[in-house]
Amino acid sequence: MKETKTAKKPKTGGLAGIVAGDSAICTVGLEGQGLTYRGYSIHDLAERSNFEEVAWLLTRGELPTPGEFKIYRARLATLRDLPGSLKEILIRLPMDAHPMDVIRTGCSMLGCLEPESETNPGWQVADRLIACVPSMILYWWQHHHGGLMPALEERVGSTAHFFLKGLSGKAPSESATRCLDVSLMLYAEHEFNASTFTARTIASTLSDFYSAVTGAIGALRGPLHGGANEAAMDLIEKFRDPEAAEAGLRASLKKKEKIMGFGHRVYTVSDPRSDIIKQWAARLAQETGDKVLFPVSERIEKVMWDEKELFPNLDFYSAAAYHFCGIPTSLFTPLFAIARLAGWSAHILEQRSDNKLIRPVSNYVGPTQREYTFISERR
Amino acid sequence: MKETKTAKKPKTGGLAGIVAGDSAICTVGLEGQGLTYRGYSIHDLAERSNFEEVAWLLTRGELPTPGEFKIYRARLATLRDLPGSLKEILIRLPMDAHPMDVIRTGCSMLGCLEPESETNPGWQVADRLIACVPSMILYWWQHHHGGLMPALEERVGSTAHFFLKGLSGKAPSESATRCLDVSLMLYAEHEFNASTFTARTIASTLSDFYSAVTGAIGALRGPLHGGANEAAMDLIEKFRDPEAAEAGLRASLKKKEKIMGFGHRVYTVSDPRSDIIKQWAARLAQETGDKVLFPVSERIEKVMWDEKELFPNLDFYSAAAYHFCGIPTSLFTPLFAIARLAGWSAHILEQRSDNKLIRPVSNYVGPTQREYTFISERR
Repeated sequence: MKETKTAKKPKTGGLAGIVAGDSAICTVGLEGQGLTYRGYSIHDLAERSNFEEVAWLLTRGELPTPGEFKIYRARLATLRDLPGSLKEILIRLPMDAHPMDVIRTGCSMLGCLEPESETNPGWQVADRLIACVPSMILYWWQHHHGGLMPALEERVGSTAHFFLKGLSGKAPSESATRCLDVSLMLYAEHEFNASTFTARTIASTLSDFYSAVTGAIGALRGPLHGGANEAAMDLIEKFRDPEAAEAGLRASLKKKEKIMGFGHRVYTVSDPRSDIIKQWAARLAQETGDKVLFPVSERIEKVMWDEKELFPNLDFYSAAAYHFCGIPTSLFTPLFAIARLAGWSAHILEQRSDNKLIRPVSNYVGPTQREYTFISERR
Repeated sequence: MKETKTAKKPKTGGLAGIVAGDSAICTVGLEGQGLTYRGYSIHDLAERSNFEEVAWLLTRGELPTPGEFKIYRARLATLRDLPGSLKEILIRLPMDAHPMDVIRTGCSMLGCLEPESETNPGWQVADRLIACVPSMILYWWQHHHGGLMPALEERVGSTAHFFLKGLSGKAPSESATRCLDVSLMLYAEHEFNASTFTARTIASTLSDFYSAVTGAIGALRGPLHGGANEAAMDLIEKFRDPEAAEAGLRASLKKKEKIMGFGHRVYTVSDPRSDIIKQWAARLAQETGDKVLFPVSERIEKVMWDEKELFPNLDFYSAAAYHFCGIPTSLFTPLFAIARLAGWSAHILEQRSDNKLIRPVSNYVGPTQREYTFISERR
């Protein structure tokens, strides 16, 4: 194809600003801000909708009717239980394994046990994974932490309720449940981010649904992507009060250390999701009597703006919010994955509906052609 | 970032001809043909080198000295054995699982057991995976097919020899061993193909080595990528002689069916690897007394050229060559993965050496902003 010859090196790397394809799922950062899923603003959804409805909206394209929603929610609850051999393997994965490695492996293994097929098509695999990835992480976690094993067969409650109850062994508060529900909506979809683009690239070879999701989990694991909320928590937890945070942060900035949870590749003015989760963090801080984490977070936000003109992205206040919900830091990124499963699924199905192999080219900067020498002649 | 606003939709989809970054590893299709690894032509390498040397060349950038090569080959042989818990899991994966799902799961699980770390850095994980992914597939395969379990602790022989011996239980012929060795070199690297680009995208979030490789395996699994050699075999095997092949193929072309193993996104004139593997297929056809598969393959090549002006790519004659080596069709793509591990590893290390998050944008074609309605108000 003659494009190869006329290819130009982009001004910035990492495909920044390069259109990689059409999509009808999401707008990110029109006018530098704003986020819509299938045309609905994230503010409306976070205020009035719930994660299961958003997962349906993303994967099916429209909001569900009352009947569709009832069946879908019940279906997700039914799909939470795990095959016996997957349970056996989960408890064999070490306690100190990275939780994202656990769900990456669980998802890949489920692809061996319940492969995609004509009778188990992509949309069905999507429902299954949205329902049972939370079970995988809870099952492995509780096994190693001596908690109550999650009641996978209970078949009631939202994803947020199921997760929090599975983690603590008791019914979670209404605010914590709603906060996690909102967070799952905020994390559910974000256009051609690195993990979603990974899923689409894998899907573009006409590989199976599990391969695309497994790869996406691997991409989300990185600290420049899903790992940012954990890194934000590590930062916030270091400081005992806002003054210590300000001093510590200024010292870090002087040393040119990267501060996670600020700025964004696509948003230029603000991250519309940040205000929403910040309100929830504030509310839960009050309810749980927090006097440290939230004030420290606010001070860090202020210093980052004063010093670097960087705004917090979704990851920053998610850290405090999740912490107030009683979620251990190492499960922050898996929760991001559980939410983003909805977006990944929508993108895999969309990629398939008008597929073209994703295969860019490189700008060669290596040695010019050289002659092979036999090993006995070397050095 | 203002690139978002000035983004243009490319003329063709799938990032065809779009430069996604710099690379010093490989040139593909300069002037529409030709392939070099680190500056060495694929013809020289296929003639004079071997897979282990090529794996070193790709991952280290230079051909090894005699001392380096001796240590590296011995090291790979030492790294073939698998942890006990991984063996346990491999035999739990169903017999009818897709072999690529097996190595995707095995690789992901090894990332839980032997995670990348300061004491187990990327290049070391690369050596480990190149050494032990063949063991994973052999272990699972032989368990289910009642063959001799592979001698993972034997610590001798090349990758090609180890694989063929592990599969048949006896010492392979010299020609079969060299044919597979050459094939592994031909499949080892190919610039920004979909699986390598997947590995780089995952690596660009600063995720771990196993995540990048696991995702790449998932991408390679697809019939538009690594699955093509198996699809070529399925086609060739359908016909009892060249005349039947010609008639059958013309009928398929009339029905606009896609024929796998022909043409290429980047090569425009020919695939330089095809002639090399075709010679090996011809030689093994003669040695094994084949009177059907090779003549059928040649006739299919001729009809594809006459009818569509499409040349065979590496996958097409690899099918017959692998078949003559005694390799079951469902292990063709795993062998491609074993070879490409060398290229993936080189690209992951290169991506990290000058990293920028890979994050393109989409061209939005969805609904304009619309108002959320409560569920009770719908329909």
